[in-house]
Formats: sequence, C-alpha cells, structure tokens
Amino acid sequence: MMRTRPLKVALLGCGVVGSEVVRIMTTHAADLAARIGAPVELAGVAVRRPDRVREGIDKDLITTDATALVKRGDLDVVVEVIGGIEPARTLITTAFEHGASVVSANKALLAQDGAALHAAAEEHGRDLYYEAAVAGAIPLIRPLRESLAGDKVNRVLGIVNGTTNFILDKMESTGAGYQEALDEATALGYAEADPTADVEGFDAAAKAAILAGIAFHTRVRLDDVYREGMTEVTAADFASAKEMGCTIKLLAICERAADGESVTARVHPAMIPLSHPLASVREAYNAVFVESEAAGQLMFYGPGAGGAPTASAVLGDLVAVCRNKLAGATGPGESAYTRLPVSPMGEVVTRYHISLDVADKPGVLAQVATVFAEHGVSIDTVRQQGKDGEASLVVVTHRAADAALTGTVEALRKLDTVRGVASIMRVEGE
Amino acid sequence: MMRTRPLKVALLGCGVVGSEVVRIMTTHAADLAARIGAPVELAGVAVRRPDRVREGIDKDLITTDATALVKRGDLDVVVEVIGGIEPARTLITTAFEHGASVVSANKALLAQDGAALHAAAEEHGRDLYYEAAVAGAIPLIRPLRESLAGDKVNRVLGIVNGTTNFILDKMESTGAGYQEALDEATALGYAEADPTADVEGFDAAAKAAILAGIAFHTRVRLDDVYREGMTEVTAADFASAKEMGCTIKLLAICERAADGESVTARVHPAMIPLSHPLASVREAYNAVFVESEAAGQLMFYGPGAGGAPTASAVLGDLVAVCRNKLAGATGPGESAYTRLPVSPMGEVVTRYHISLDVADKPGVLAQVATVFAEHGVSIDTVRQQGKDGEASLVVVTHRAADAALTGTVEALRKLDTVRGVASIMRVEGE
Repeated sequence: MMRTRPLKVALLGCGVVGSEVVRIMTTHAADLAARIGAPVELAGVAVRRPDRVREGIDKDLITTDATALVKRGDLDVVVEVIGGIEPARTLITTAFEHGASVVSANKALLAQDGAALHAAAEEHGRDLYYEAAVAGAIPLIRPLRESLAGDKVNRVLGIVNGTTNFILDKMESTGAGYQEALDEATALGYAEADPTADVEGFDAAAKAAILAGIAFHTRVRLDDVYREGMTEVTAADFASAKEMGCTIKLLAICERAADGESVTARVHPAMIPLSHPLASVREAYNAVFVESEAAGQLMFYGPGAGGAPTASAVLGDLVAVCRNKLAGATGPGESAYTRLPVSPMGEVVTRYHISLDVADKPGVLAQVATVFAEHGVSIDTVRQQGKDGEASLVVVTHRAADAALTGTVEALRKLDTVRGVASIMRVEGE
Repeated sequence: MMRTRPLKVALLGCGVVGSEVVRIMTTHAADLAARIGAPVELAGVAVRRPDRVREGIDKDLITTDATALVKRGDLDVVVEVIGGIEPARTLITTAFEHGASVVSANKALLAQDGAALHAAAEEHGRDLYYEAAVAGAIPLIRPLRESLAGDKVNRVLGIVNGTTNFILDKMESTGAGYQEALDEATALGYAEADPTADVEGFDAAAKAAILAGIAFHTRVRLDDVYREGMTEVTAADFASAKEMGCTIKLLAICERAADGESVTARVHPAMIPLSHPLASVREAYNAVFVESEAAGQLMFYGPGAGGAPTASAVLGDLVAVCRNKLAGATGPGESAYTRLPVSPMGEVVTRYHISLDVADKPGVLAQVATVFAEHGVSIDTVRQQGKDGEASLVVVTHRAADAALTGTVEALRKLDTVRGVASIMRVEGE
C-alpha cells in the first residue's frame, strides 16, 4: 500500500554524481515510489555555484546554504555527494541531529571518521549508508555487511581505483611508460588534472580502510592502511612480470592474520598471475575478491566510478534508507565488536620479486643468497642474466614477513657487488 | 547492547547444507550474537532419519515431526533446507502462521510458488529470505533487490548451474563428449546419480524465474521460462564454437524487451565469445552478469553450490531476519508492481549458428540464402566446406526473432539439397 505523503530528500552537492541522482529521481520517480512504498520528493539542493545551469532542477530548490538546508527539520534523507572532510562531516552530523538519515559517497570522510559518524547516527536513531563510497556501482558494502554477516571473511583483495587500473592496463597492453599512460588517461577523462589521490594510492587506501573495517567487524582508519603509489612502476617491471606469467595491478589488500588475532590493510602495486581473475580486469573497471570461511572465493566486478554508476549505488541506499524510515527502523550500523588491532606493514606476510644490478663476477650469487639467508628469507627462484660485464639478478622469494624482506633489500643495497636495486615488487594472488 | 533472551531458530532438513548451518551456528555463536544483537539458539531440527549420527546436535532437538516443530509458536526463524515442493510449502506457510519468519534455499518452490509464499509472509508480517536459492554463496538476490533498487535492470545473463558448467568446461578443455564429461562429473560428485534436473536445465530455469522476477519487479514462474538442456551439445559444437572465437555455456538469460513492455526468461546452451567474462568461468563455479541502466555491467562470481557456500548464504539471511525481528520490522518483500508480461521464446531476439550438411553442387548456397531471406533473417557469415561430394555450410545469422530463426531452420530441413541440420546453437554475449 502506497503512502501518499512523500519522503523528503535533500542533496548536498550537484556535480557529476549529484546531477545523475537528480536525473534518476526525476525520470524514475514512479519506480522509486513503488519500490519504497511512498513517493520521494527532492526538497533542496545545496551547491557552491547557484548560477550554473542545472537541467531538470527547480530553481527554488537550489541554495548555497547547506547548513540551513540540513537544519530544516522536515528532511527524511540527506544525500551527501560533496566529498572531502569539511564541510561534509559537520553537515552530516547536523543532518542526524535534525532528523535525517544520510546516504554518502564520501570515502575519505568515512575512512577517517567512520566510527564517529556511525556513533552520531546511532545516537540519533538514523541510518548512515555509503555503498557508493567504495567501487562505485559494485555492490560491496551491502554484501559484506549483510550477505556475509553469517560468515567469516579472511581476505579482501581488490582493484578499487579505476584511474590507476586504466594506466596500468595501458602500460601492459601498449608497453607505454607511466607518464605516457597517465597522459592518455588524463586526455580521456579517466585521470584528474591533479592525479595525486589516485596514483599515490590515497583513494584506494580510503576504500581499503572502509572494506577492512566492515569485513573484519573492527575499526580500520585511513592512517592504519599501508600505502604505496604506482608512479614508480616501469615498462621494465611489466616485462619482468610477463616473464613470470604475471601482470601488475594496484591492489587493496585486507587480511586477517593467520592466528586471527589481528588484521592488516595495505595498498601497493603487485604482480599477480595472469590466471587470476583480477589480472583480466581492464580499463577503469574495478573488481574485488572476497575470501571467506564458508562461502569460499567470491568476486564482484563492475564500473568503479562515473556519475551514473555511482548514482546507482546512492539510489540503492536511498531506497533502503527510505524503506527503513517507513518501517520505523534503522538498518545495520557499525559492527566493530571484534576490536582486532591493525598490524603494521612489517608483519604482513608477502613475497618479493627483486631485480638487482650486480657485478658479473664469481661469488656474487653466493653473497646475495647469504643476505637472504641471514634475514630468514627463503628464495623461490633466481634468474641471472649477464650483459657487458654487468649482470642482472632476479630473485623471487618465498613468503616472509615484510619487515624481513625490506631488511633483506636494505642489506643487499650495502653489498659492494650490488650496483643497484632496479625494482622491488610484491607478488600476490597465488 | 545485547539482548540476552535468545532468538529461536528451527531447522527443517539436516543434509549437506543443514549440517553446515548447524556447524556454523555452533562454532561462530558469539560472532552471530554480536552481529545480530542477541544470541541465536537452535530450537529444533526436523529430519527424516532421526537415528543417523549428527555431530554437534543435541539429540533432544531432533524430531521427525516437522509440522509440530513449526507449530510450536515460540520460534523466531525457520530455516528450510529440505528442498522440493511438499512438504516444504506447507511447512513454510505453517511457520508464518505460527509466528516465525523463514529462510529458505528452495529454488524449485520459490520459482513455482514465490508469489503465494510472499503473500503469506506479508499477511502474517514475517520475512521470507532466500539468497541461498540462487547461485549458492554468491550474493545476488540482495544486490538485485536492495543495491540495485534505485536502478533499472535490463538484462541478467548467468551461469547458474555448477554441474553443467563443470561438464561443459571438461568438454571444452579435454575435447571429451557429453557422456564422458558427465561420467567424470558424477565420479567427482559434481553430478547427482540422476542428473536430469541439472543437465535438462530445470535447476537453472528455476533460478532464472527467481532472478527475472526480482530484476524486473514482476512475476515470473518456472513455467514462463523457456528451457533447453545441454545433453545434445557435442564435441563438434565446441569445435565450431572455437572457430568462431567462442565457447559454449549453459546460460540463464532474463531480458527486458527493447520496448520495455515485456520480459523474457530462458535457459539454453549458447556460444559466447572467449573474450566475455562468463567464458572463463571454470569448473563448477557460477557467475552472473547484470546489466542495468545506471550501474552498467556488473558481475558476481563464486561457488554456486556446496554445503558450506550455501550455508553462508543461509546464515547471512538468518542474521538479517533476526535483526529485522529485533527491530520489529520486516525486510523488503515481493516487488511485482510492474506486472510486465513474460513473452514466449518466439519473441526473443537472438542469433543462430547453424551447421548444415548439404549436397556439394552449384546453386545450394543460393537456395539456402533464399530461405533465410524469405523468413526475414539476415545472414552475418557463411562458411562452406566440401568433403567427398557432400559439403557443410555454417551460417551465422544477424539478430532476429527466435520464431523467425526456428521457422528458417524448419524450411531448410525441407530443402532437397539439405541432407541434415548438424547443429543449431544460439550466440549470446556480444
């Protein structure tokens, strides 16, 4: 049975995502009403530049005073698609205080202050949903939080940044260097003018923090996530990867330690086997592997960004929050009861692919192998190639603590016979 | 804050899935309690063979009287993993009448009587959840029903039967015939002694009905689903597929018609390009592609069957239903407001790959081409191969209504110069 009084929704921000949210709310109003059980009304849109033409939005709805909008008191839901920490954070908490639930796409804010925001939502009996904050349209938060609520997730391994995947895919398929591939990504609109947040891994790290927190029912903040960007990945690294039957992806990896007593979260480029499903994720697509005790290996794949895909995730949350409101209930809030500590990168168990430039003379391999042994790192394969009195030595290790591996590399750098460390890359997904 | 009075759960059926449900409920009791907000207690287990040893289950909980169990009146949730139509249907409706919500893994029942069961749940204010009924552990029902609730799904294309995917994967990778691959699947436990439900597509058709109903917010019953099994797929078909850069999969395909006024649901073997992500789904894995207006292409991948994966899905639903119960609410019920009719197979637009044995003499191709033209079917490619006075003609059509394509094939059979139709296979995923 349909309620006739509409639910009132305010929108904070009306850029690429916000304008798609409005478009869908308008063109699919009847569907949304049928699925929610009540019509949804756009009650206000807070923007920075009110004079910009906004098709399909009544001018009377537009305001520059976001604070006054969220304080109105008659709103059911506030959709926050401004991004960034402030004023988004204050607006969201103000919305909770004044009776509204919140749907947000704000990964940076959730990764930094998720716990406080969840607490504020709970205090006021509101919902805080943010499927759009991680991997755009791909349902991930809801499956982790609800579908896998009876399972034990041990690992989340994903490509969660489309810009960097586009760049790495270009480098692999065309042999281009990083800068050339970045230029193409920029020209095609896949990279922003300042690509730092993407290429240095900040965006992926925020998503890793959110995913790890939900997957392991604990609190993981952005600062807890180890982060390496992908600006130093070279065409030579791709050639090395190819020789190993691998490609290179920027991965977000969240793991439960073998003893179950701690978790880790990290973002860095890594070699993964070409046979791994993540290896074939092309262009700006995202994909996330989830390994859990009972379900086994699951993968979720789709567009990780863009106005319409992100709006799809926002609207899914909007429908859920509206349904909750009509039912007089709230959905699942923060689940952080395990209070598992987040271990530093040094304790993560991984494998290294190390490329060394060494002197081409007898005894070098013995010296190098001794350094690995001294650090307790066992070697899987060594490949030696001579070239003009110099030689290159490619070593792939067995699994070891990251601290032992970095210690090994530091010691190798000090050897007289090691002219340089050409590249270091972790190997994952095996 | 934790409620101390436990929620009471009864289990109907204690086979492969049920025993895993009990195992997880027992070993992860503290986690489930924390996630739900109250402990969960196993209140009874209805089985057919009470004297079978059941590890970890208190003997006092076991009963053969399932009806008395669901009538107890103190149950919060009934988990139905018996399968089949009766007694499952009556037990579920009785459970609703006596105060319990239901979590079911019963695809056959949901595909046949989903509407009536949803109506019964709604009448009594209970939940009916059944994530486990489609594609085992893969979250699909919840993403379609909730994550995509603000989007418009146009197509669902999936591998939803692990047994047949295992058989087809073996045929492709080893060149084996159907019977040989089936025998291997049986020996390895991937196929049942009577594999009819799998290989004739009944299992996939039930899943297609459920997916289509949820995706298009309408009612689709098992009888509405066009169904062809995969027992007639031959090694020669795989060879033909390979020549086209394709492989063969048994697909469940649910589509909204181009005019949006009707939907279709069908299960049949089809050639799909090797570049399509579904082509690389190996062994008994399942994967489902969802195409929606705003989100674009999403894929969900994972184990489609098995005790533990199916139990994972059951327990996710159990947590959700228990949370709803504590909140005094129910989750989203049936959404069938679009009332879109289900069109017959003849109206589905598809492409055919047709292999003909023809007389090797002039004019045959002209005759054959005329038949296609007379039926309004346009030809994409023709490949002719002579062998000992006979010739084979492989025709791949452009897209046309299935009725026009079957009409074309019937007319071809009547040509004197056509000795036989060696194979017909639809081509999808392009």
